[in-house]
Amino acid sequence: MTAVPDPRRIGALLRDASVTVDADLPAQVRVEVARIAGRPPGAGTGPRVHVGPALPADAGPRRLLWMHSTNAGVDGLLRACGPAGWPAGTLLTRTVGRMGERIGQYVLGWVLADCQDVVGFLHQHEARVWQRRPARLAAGERAVVFGTGGIGTAIGRALRAVGVRTVGVARTPRPADGGDGRGGSGGSGGSDGCGGFDGVVTLDAVLREAARPAGEAGETARVLAGARWLVNALPLTPATERLLGAELFAAAGGAALINVGRGATVDTDALAAALASGTLRGAVLDVLPEEPAPPESAVWDLPRTVITSHSSGPTTEADIVADFRTAWTCLTAGELPPLTVRPDAGY
Amino acid sequence: MTAVPDPRRIGALLRDASVTVDADLPAQVRVEVARIAGRPPGAGTGPRVHVGPALPADAGPRRLLWMHSTNAGVDGLLRACGPAGWPAGTLLTRTVGRMGERIGQYVLGWVLADCQDVVGFLHQHEARVWQRRPARLAAGERAVVFGTGGIGTAIGRALRAVGVRTVGVARTPRPADGGDGRGGSGGSGGSDGCGGFDGVVTLDAVLREAARPAGEAGETARVLAGARWLVNALPLTPATERLLGAELFAAAGGAALINVGRGATVDTDALAAALASGTLRGAVLDVLPEEPAPPESAVWDLPRTVITSHSSGPTTEADIVADFRTAWTCLTAGELPPLTVRPDAGY
Repeated sequence: MTAVPDPRRIGALLRDASVTVDADLPAQVRVEVARIAGRPPGAGTGPRVHVGPALPADAGPRRLLWMHSTNAGVDGLLRACGPAGWPAGTLLTRTVGRMGERIGQYVLGWVLADCQDVVGFLHQHEARVWQRRPARLAAGERAVVFGTGGIGTAIGRALRAVGVRTVGVARTPRPADGGDGRGGSGGSGGSDGCGGFDGVVTLDAVLREAARPAGEAGETARVLAGARWLVNALPLTPATERLLGAELFAAAGGAALINVGRGATVDTDALAAALASGTLRGAVLDVLPEEPAPPESAVWDLPRTVITSHSSGPTTEADIVADFRTAWTCLTAGELPPLTVRPDAGY
Repeated sequence: MTAVPDPRRIGALLRDASVTVDADLPAQVRVEVARIAGRPPGAGTGPRVHVGPALPADAGPRRLLWMHSTNAGVDGLLRACGPAGWPAGTLLTRTVGRMGERIGQYVLGWVLADCQDVVGFLHQHEARVWQRRPARLAAGERAVVFGTGGIGTAIGRALRAVGVRTVGVARTPRPADGGDGRGGSGGSGGSDGCGGFDGVVTLDAVLREAARPAGEAGETARVLAGARWLVNALPLTPATERLLGAELFAAAGGAALINVGRGATVDTDALAAALASGTLRGAVLDVLPEEPAPPESAVWDLPRTVITSHSSGPTTEADIVADFRTAWTCLTAGELPPLTVRPDAGY
């Protein structure tokens, strides 16, 4: 088990730390980080603090006191450490910023585009055809959101604002425990527990139900059966890899999948089969197992699918600076920052 | 001046009225109307009540006691009466139902499709291109909504739910007076005055400001200058014909127009010019001066425009029945139904 380091130790060592910022980040981030740290980049004789999307080329994590990731998803960072894993002595924090609000609006936007048949109207316009296409009110429809942390909750909140009934799927029985791909438990992502959901079920229960024969399906299976949208906000960990697969899609027949978590949490072959057979009504994929998708990839040929190039939840300079500032303030007070990564959990 | 007839007189005459329903309406509407009236269609020796989209072929309005329109917009019905206008003795009510909620969600759907660049992603997907397209948060952007009655208010409410700042443009200084193309003042459309708006300005002030030279522009002109969306929910009356024109588009440079009111309230030539020059960023047109638009129409060639075939606010059987029931109940109690049309106002 890799424990999270003691924040009081980190906080005490910050006084002499050398704070560096990835060279590819905008100058404004370097200026603000230096202002927060109260020293120019690289000045300081003590251990190193690094702000960036990846481990610094000139120092592995074992040389680092604290790494602040400019991304929300840290699966790549953790993978880069190899089998030894993230070292116990190094603190890892991440950036979420207003990502919850952004991803919530992305999901709401594509849900309403579905209800309003935006794609159908665009094709019809191109063909110069005047024909009514009745819209569907989102109110009363059901969305099942996988992940009940900051991002999942923000998605639920955005959907509930237009009357969608939302069911959160938590990996653990405690729904407020944090469990999405990009948000966090607490922190500036704004986890407020079940606030985004009309109800919460556990992932185990959902998978167990999905595996049962149709005639024997229980209440949780009926949650899936009535869903118009499946929204995936799960992070990529060994436990979530290819978790959304054939049985789940079959149990949610007629639903459309919106993936804003990580591409590899979905079984791509099962997804392709479910779209081809019509089991899934459609898909909006912001993330893919292989990014960027090359032009020759078969994913572009999936029917009734739109790929949005990992655009749903960008982090801005302001997000990076704000979350770094919060972490710095917490640590100098001897407290653990809210966006601290638990390396064993993977988020 | 055509006065609205005395509801007590209408109510008293309902007892023996012959209630007919347009033959093209679904059977369920006929069944429900007969149930509400307590008599089979056509039975009754007294004056006639008609439920339908248009005047009955076998009787002009002068033979009618009360006409309940199955549509919200009644401009066509009033036009059909010719220069003499709607007769003072005939009551006219209309159907709104859940149209406010539907049109609100239509507008929100297209606003978010704009923010999320749905059209851009669809084109990019078709070209098999992976490239981030940063979304814009709707929160903090401004929408100017023309019409502050039931529909306009519902649009404002839908947009405010995602943080859009909404300014309502009322034709009269009293914002709760009812003033949109399909909703009503009060009634089942659910007018709640300024509830959908962060602020309300008058149409006169907007038009006056739009006509002033740029350097002398006042506060109202700045409302337009900062708008990301112009949403038109005005009814078609002699006062609103081609009301949205060149000066207004110029004052709202950079905005996109969403028209859910009536097509003829927009100056089509001015719209074409503003789209061609880039003054308007785009347009979503649910309504056109000529409907249906034939394939050879030039409207299909307007740049950055989507035409949605008058689909934003369908009335359902349930809407027709509910609003007819409310009107019937009001009249038998001697009260004026909330969706009574004032023929002089045109809505």
